[in-house]
Amino acid sequence: MHAYRSHTCAELNTAHAGQAIRLAGWVHRVRDHGGVLFVDLRDHHGVTQLLADSDSPAFSAIERLKAETVIRVDGRVKARDASLVNPKIPTGGIEVYVTDMEILGPAEELPMPVFGDLDYPEETRLTYRFLDLRRESLHRNMMLRSNVVRSIRNRMWAAGFNEFQTPIITASSPEGARDFLVPSRLHPGKFYALPQAPQQFKQLIMVAGFDRYFQIAPCFRDEDPRADRSPTDFYQLDVEMSFVTQEDVFAAVQPVIQGVFEEFGGGRRVDPDWPLISYADSALWYGTDKPDLRNPIRMQVVSDHFRASGFAIFAKLLENEGTEIRAIPAPGGGSRKFCDRMNAFAQAQGLPGMGYIFWRKAEDGSGMEAAGPLAKNIGPERTEAIRQQLGLGEGDAAFFLGGKPETFEAIAGRARTEIGRELGLIDENCFKFAWIVDFPMYEKDPETGRIDFSHNPFSMPQGGMAALEGDPLKVLGFQYDLACNGYELVSGAIRNHKPEIMFKAFELAGYGREEVEKRFGGMVKAFKYGAPPHGGCAAGIDRIVMLLADTANIREVIMFPMNQRAEDLLMGAPSEPTNEQLRELRLRVLPKE
Amino acid sequence: MHAYRSHTCAELNTAHAGQAIRLAGWVHRVRDHGGVLFVDLRDHHGVTQLLADSDSPAFSAIERLKAETVIRVDGRVKARDASLVNPKIPTGGIEVYVTDMEILGPAEELPMPVFGDLDYPEETRLTYRFLDLRRESLHRNMMLRSNVVRSIRNRMWAAGFNEFQTPIITASSPEGARDFLVPSRLHPGKFYALPQAPQQFKQLIMVAGFDRYFQIAPCFRDEDPRADRSPTDFYQLDVEMSFVTQEDVFAAVQPVIQGVFEEFGGGRRVDPDWPLISYADSALWYGTDKPDLRNPIRMQVVSDHFRASGFAIFAKLLENEGTEIRAIPAPGGGSRKFCDRMNAFAQAQGLPGMGYIFWRKAEDGSGMEAAGPLAKNIGPERTEAIRQQLGLGEGDAAFFLGGKPETFEAIAGRARTEIGRELGLIDENCFKFAWIVDFPMYEKDPETGRIDFSHNPFSMPQGGMAALEGDPLKVLGFQYDLACNGYELVSGAIRNHKPEIMFKAFELAGYGREEVEKRFGGMVKAFKYGAPPHGGCAAGIDRIVMLLADTANIREVIMFPMNQRAEDLLMGAPSEPTNEQLRELRLRVLPKE
Repeated sequence: MHAYRSHTCAELNTAHAGQAIRLAGWVHRVRDHGGVLFVDLRDHHGVTQLLADSDSPAFSAIERLKAETVIRVDGRVKARDASLVNPKIPTGGIEVYVTDMEILGPAEELPMPVFGDLDYPEETRLTYRFLDLRRESLHRNMMLRSNVVRSIRNRMWAAGFNEFQTPIITASSPEGARDFLVPSRLHPGKFYALPQAPQQFKQLIMVAGFDRYFQIAPCFRDEDPRADRSPTDFYQLDVEMSFVTQEDVFAAVQPVIQGVFEEFGGGRRVDPDWPLISYADSALWYGTDKPDLRNPIRMQVVSDHFRASGFAIFAKLLENEGTEIRAIPAPGGGSRKFCDRMNAFAQAQGLPGMGYIFWRKAEDGSGMEAAGPLAKNIGPERTEAIRQQLGLGEGDAAFFLGGKPETFEAIAGRARTEIGRELGLIDENCFKFAWIVDFPMYEKDPETGRIDFSHNPFSMPQGGMAALEGDPLKVLGFQYDLACNGYELVSGAIRNHKPEIMFKAFELAGYGREEVEKRFGGMVKAFKYGAPPHGGCAAGIDRIVMLLADTANIREVIMFPMNQRAEDLLMGAPSEPTNEQLRELRLRVLPKE
Repeated sequence: MHAYRSHTCAELNTAHAGQAIRLAGWVHRVRDHGGVLFVDLRDHHGVTQLLADSDSPAFSAIERLKAETVIRVDGRVKARDASLVNPKIPTGGIEVYVTDMEILGPAEELPMPVFGDLDYPEETRLTYRFLDLRRESLHRNMMLRSNVVRSIRNRMWAAGFNEFQTPIITASSPEGARDFLVPSRLHPGKFYALPQAPQQFKQLIMVAGFDRYFQIAPCFRDEDPRADRSPTDFYQLDVEMSFVTQEDVFAAVQPVIQGVFEEFGGGRRVDPDWPLISYADSALWYGTDKPDLRNPIRMQVVSDHFRASGFAIFAKLLENEGTEIRAIPAPGGGSRKFCDRMNAFAQAQGLPGMGYIFWRKAEDGSGMEAAGPLAKNIGPERTEAIRQQLGLGEGDAAFFLGGKPETFEAIAGRARTEIGRELGLIDENCFKFAWIVDFPMYEKDPETGRIDFSHNPFSMPQGGMAALEGDPLKVLGFQYDLACNGYELVSGAIRNHKPEIMFKAFELAGYGREEVEKRFGGMVKAFKYGAPPHGGCAAGIDRIVMLLADTANIREVIMFPMNQRAEDLLMGAPSEPTNEQLRELRLRVLPKE
């Protein structure tokens, strides 16, 4: 017989009854039923119930077992009495009568238990990560992550993509975030950087003639901590393709992502319809570029109904250029109580409030009537026109926000989410996707008036060089995001592979030719020697697993995460270097100011 | 029709004759056959021959094309004349008559050509890596690597292993090499380290209750440059299993490695017999712990034949304790010329020389005679006894080395290789593997007399705690290497999962309890709370691909390698940090001494 086990802890069933077997695993819990000891023995695969009575030679040793001790037992499989069968686990039909037991790995008193659902402070959980990982939910999340990544790889390979590894110790790649630096010992005073993303490398792979690249790539950004992101590194499904248009990228990516969500969504519906929504429409309809389409509410422009109306605030607002009134329809929200609550929500978000109208059964019983101060101010005709435009009826409401869109759009988006949630309009049991397209290439800093890239500077402007001759703020890029249930899951672009267009694009954002060559030298050089049109995207692995695992805490889907102060409490990182290490790197740490 | 292509450059054949198609790719070369232009158009998939005569509207544009320009062409597929068919490529039966051409990516004069086999200095090749990668052999190597890694993953998954990602920004993990450090901005003065290997993490994964882990893991070591290794990082297939013995690890790994070599060996035979050879036997038989078993020569101890013999040098040597005489049989090496050449080889390696005997047809025609000065000295009886022990005959030779084995073992190993090569005994067309087992746990520094670990300090000593009570130099570890064709391909061990045995093992090597807890704190702590017996190994991905690609230069199997001074010539790394970066990290670079 094998030194440690003849079966795993999920393998035995009534077909094994009578067999002499050997198991190994962790002591999940021990129960003493008056002279009969029951042990739940746990391994990676499952749990098997062990049994020892005072006739068992192992009885007294088992009696002394501490939780989480690793043991090996020999025993005989017994079918359970029908009344004791546990149909929820594969081994629920049997138990093992222990004849011999050996301690393989003793356990001291635990700083946190594995058995049970008691919550523990995150610092304890991270310090004893190896214990926390034994708990069912983390174990399940890690397996989910492993299986998701495996499935993604299989799907990418099946679609003709090849995985290539790009350098991790490399040059600084200015992508907006801060680099992690790595001092060079062979070249003291010089530093490598960890890649914020393999952006330049994947583009170089295209220039080097490989057609379809992907990588489950570690990305490193020295960012200030936030609950839903790792303070040091994260993984992305990095994708790039040659000789493609935006549509080709969508056609390649949708089956992979949709397939993964169908495979691991736990029965949640995956909507196969992935609409293309322009950035402008998304801002207008949903107040965000990562809309949650499970929420059916779509905002609309209703400015005309308020122009020169009796509602002076909006009427006056509309006299200023660039202003709009937008409505958030709220089907089922037709009560003063609900409308006041949403108005309070808008105030909490920093707005003076949201005007509203709601439609209720008329008090005189003669059908429907519109209520709310705003309806009174603009009168019944305009109110009715608004109702018809929004397609609302009795029992519904509409909220109104006005001004320059950029001043209220984001809050309107949050109000839409809140309204949808409050009214139960969001189908929690499904995943809905949309490609957000036609992002503007540039934006103007409201304070300095300076033009800068609004997204990725490497994107191809729609219309190419000609488009860059006009108003930069009107230029759209071949740039796209995939939104899912209110999160940005994928971001990508068709790249600017022509050096002249690239220099011009950077010039508009205030970067001279020399600076571009200095900052992106490798790539710019490569583009001079035959670059194919290419494009791609990157999908957040951690985010995908978080959505599938239904958790908002990124540390629930990473095996050994940092805490929010970017410390590894288990391994003790970061730590003081030795003098010898600093000397070799020719570095000195400056004292605190 | 698609904006860039209707087919790839490897897709068209005579079945497409007459069709209007669109292709895109790189101008591999242009030939002008007196008014008819032939263009080899190349993409990731293959090459298609384009054709334009003076009737083609694209003629003059094609005439001006520079090599490596990226173009899109429209044209019509024509079957080639039978005499012009090229059966070596899939598109060799057709050519495409070009009706329209567009330049997608222009190319300047090339610093090195893509077409042709001309060799270029490595610095040029690395600076223009994107051009070098377009060449056939590098393109093939990169695809080989991608496919090897894919195959390994598939085989590991099929064997029930799960891939988990372990941290890259982590704590210093002292494993013998130098760490790369990463200064922390949030904790100025403290540093992270990049992992030399995920050794501690994979062991923690076992302690956390996962059964079978693997990872294609990046490993980082700040080592001084060497031709066959990357100066910064490399990839390993990292494997760990719980509740296993050494044999379980071998049984899991052999099918994966053997399968990969069978799949990608290009027809070279993969010997399915993987013998277990003890470290001691390997040293004796092959003079190394990574023997090339394609070489049939096995060395033997022949001391007894020289004891008190007429060959005074050996006879005297043998009077000292711990000395031995070993023979290298050389079947087919029976000529004075060959023997003298090998003797010279040994001298060039720093030995006084190698004695030899060779057997030739007797000059008087009466059968076989032994020749060489050594044979004369020891006389015919001893000579014949040696011949019989070594199983040699007419036309063969034997070489002899003597002394304390450690003084000549390595040179004997190199002589064995040289002899095998010179005599054509090595079957270049196959892969032969062997597990080297029973490594000693400790070795004594010949100068200081200090006892230290000879390999991995985390290995379980054979015999456990009891074995550590005796002579440390006699303790063997459950530690193993896989040798293939003279290279170490895999290294691994059954781990020491019991804290008390671990402390004792470190104590023998001079490390106190506190130091062990400080250096390996995370793992030692974990072992106190129920650690399963576990073991595993790591296989060098770069090395596997090098063997399969039949190259000795690691830069031929890495997409974007550093040069041997640890510089990335394409991206310009390492580079000077900005003052802002240093300030944020609170570091100062010290001036050169």
